[in-house]
Amino acid sequence: MQWNSFFAERTALLTRSPIRELLKFTTQPEVISFAGGLPAPELFPIDRIREAANTVLSKYGPEALQYSTTEGMPELRSFLAQRLSSDTLTVKPDNILIVTGSQQALDLIARVFLNEHDRVILENPTYLGMLQTCKPYDLTYLPVTTDCDGMRVDAIPELLRQNPRLMYVVPNYQNPQGTTLGRERRLELIQMLDQHPVPLVEDNPYGELRYTGEIEPSLLELDAQSLGIRALNGRVIYTSTFSKELSPGLRVGWIAAPMPVIDKLVEAKQSTDLHTSTFVQYIINEVVRDGFLDSHIAALRTVYRERRDIMLAAMEKYFPEEVTWTRPAGGLFLMVYMPQYLDAEDLLKEALTYKVAFVPGIDFHVGNTGQNTFRLNFSNASPQMIEEGIKRLGRLLKNVIK
Amino acid sequence: MQWNSFFAERTALLTRSPIRELLKFTTQPEVISFAGGLPAPELFPIDRIREAANTVLSKYGPEALQYSTTEGMPELRSFLAQRLSSDTLTVKPDNILIVTGSQQALDLIARVFLNEHDRVILENPTYLGMLQTCKPYDLTYLPVTTDCDGMRVDAIPELLRQNPRLMYVVPNYQNPQGTTLGRERRLELIQMLDQHPVPLVEDNPYGELRYTGEIEPSLLELDAQSLGIRALNGRVIYTSTFSKELSPGLRVGWIAAPMPVIDKLVEAKQSTDLHTSTFVQYIINEVVRDGFLDSHIAALRTVYRERRDIMLAAMEKYFPEEVTWTRPAGGLFLMVYMPQYLDAEDLLKEALTYKVAFVPGIDFHVGNTGQNTFRLNFSNASPQMIEEGIKRLGRLLKNVIK
Repeated sequence: MQWNSFFAERTALLTRSPIRELLKFTTQPEVISFAGGLPAPELFPIDRIREAANTVLSKYGPEALQYSTTEGMPELRSFLAQRLSSDTLTVKPDNILIVTGSQQALDLIARVFLNEHDRVILENPTYLGMLQTCKPYDLTYLPVTTDCDGMRVDAIPELLRQNPRLMYVVPNYQNPQGTTLGRERRLELIQMLDQHPVPLVEDNPYGELRYTGEIEPSLLELDAQSLGIRALNGRVIYTSTFSKELSPGLRVGWIAAPMPVIDKLVEAKQSTDLHTSTFVQYIINEVVRDGFLDSHIAALRTVYRERRDIMLAAMEKYFPEEVTWTRPAGGLFLMVYMPQYLDAEDLLKEALTYKVAFVPGIDFHVGNTGQNTFRLNFSNASPQMIEEGIKRLGRLLKNVIK
Repeated sequence: MQWNSFFAERTALLTRSPIRELLKFTTQPEVISFAGGLPAPELFPIDRIREAANTVLSKYGPEALQYSTTEGMPELRSFLAQRLSSDTLTVKPDNILIVTGSQQALDLIARVFLNEHDRVILENPTYLGMLQTCKPYDLTYLPVTTDCDGMRVDAIPELLRQNPRLMYVVPNYQNPQGTTLGRERRLELIQMLDQHPVPLVEDNPYGELRYTGEIEPSLLELDAQSLGIRALNGRVIYTSTFSKELSPGLRVGWIAAPMPVIDKLVEAKQSTDLHTSTFVQYIINEVVRDGFLDSHIAALRTVYRERRDIMLAAMEKYFPEEVTWTRPAGGLFLMVYMPQYLDAEDLLKEALTYKVAFVPGIDFHVGNTGQNTFRLNFSNASPQMIEEGIKRLGRLLKNVIK
């Protein structure tokens, strides 16, 4: 059977990354890997989840195992609506759609908004999962350069004039750079939408995992303030997930958006997977109640802050001076910038002989930039492993830098 | 914000069915509803699932809550591969992709295969969820008429000459009609592919829920036999689910397909939801082991067979002779055909005043046919409710038939 002759045109755009093949080698036990984006498994609230699973089956019985609505469990939607609401913003449960991880949020948003060959504004570099979701649409990216304060928003008015379909931003401790969009830039960005309204997707998977300073107000909130409305009815579509705060293996995320957008996303989700696992939604609703989520996040902050600090200190100690890196206020990642003549993909092959691994930055970039960058994850390895891994990486870097 | 001006063109094709709005009224407690497609909740193996959830968290620890591979849990893929294998067909674990319910199987297949405006061969009527998945592609359907033995395959060679992209079949106790594709027709259908190879999607969610006679061999198996190969490397893409046999609220299904197809489906799934819930896959793997799945299916068969028989007997007793219906050998549904001058959507409005509900058949049909048909589900109501509901429906039908 000549399958290729039956695949859709968009399927030819789906190609496996050579890096992903390389990354398979990073799972060997003797390799210290900073490559994944994994939360620390020893911090998963296993006992609380076990208890919740049992409670849910006693309390709700078969209802927890039956088909349920596409929109999601009403109690969980209420919980999230309350949590997103503030003094100036009232989010209603109807504004919330529960999704199968925030990857599905990106996929549904792409389906509802993107025509082939559309233009989309995004940070460069940006989240790899968004680029993968966008691949079949063969988009024209309008990339915004970034610095340690996030997107250079002064470049955006020019891009807005090119009729983009969407703007996509990860404002907090962005994957891959770990940088945060500053307050001034947030306000400027929102004001630009007055002249050139365009749907702004705020992807905020790590927002509450801040280790230094105060959490910045969301673009969702600033948008409502700027429009002088309390209701969620502006230009921002917000998405987040329980993957980093509870467990990624449960696969539950959410979208908060104005009703006309939620309506279309629900239609799209229904034909995609009917609804997110009822059982898992019920478990999460049981886990987060009575303040557990906040106390658990506080515990995560303490551990991840320490790991970040150990990684940054080790880099100071072991990395050659030709190399620079970001100093994230939160999240799971930081980014390393090598001299332009070095290629991080080549370096990864060598790194494996040093028994240490990272992700080359090129796949997070658009326009064939970022060859000399790589991303390090600091949430998944123990302090000892971080120190040792950075030491190995430092030795390698000193060997390759002339 | 003028959201409509930002939605993709395909989004205009997503419209809510007026029937779905009507069906909201069917959930009132005094209404006996044959409208849903729900398995009987009192048969969900709650204790086994509770035990499995506890075992999984003790046995695997955090691994059961961590990110996992897009392809799915290796043990569960092995279990399914073995289960699908027979004397003449060897399915390998690599041929299996775990998906988030079989609705996702249809969605991923559509993404990988369908260009806009493609032609697709399908039974008329066919599964509503497939039609919903296909909506954004604005397809030209090549419908095949059906009788009590399933598709009229003699009509297919003519359709195969029109260069279809896919053929979609629900061969066993089809939703909505409950009919089964006969053995002779299966063999003829597979032979037609020799002359006109086209990907054949076999959707088999209810296959093992047979109450009368023997389960027919799958098209997947017959295809391999016809090609004289043992490996899964023919023209059939097979999909099924645990929704009807264990619990729909867990949202786990699977696809079995040749490797070139699995490769593309994995790429598509990765950008859609990364992977199906790790925790839920682990639970199902624990639930099905040691022969539990087979003994549970045997118990389901006994209960559903009785409900089917009670519904059929009640229809004989209470329905006027102008009305006919199917007599399914398995599954959850049967279909009722009224005289042409009656419209099932109008009837549903009246049925609600009789406190009984069903799904009008029109949404399962293509080409604006089937207005005079409706679908009844016999798995979800108790024997007493079935008898009473059919009695009410009989009274209504006698009143509207002149």
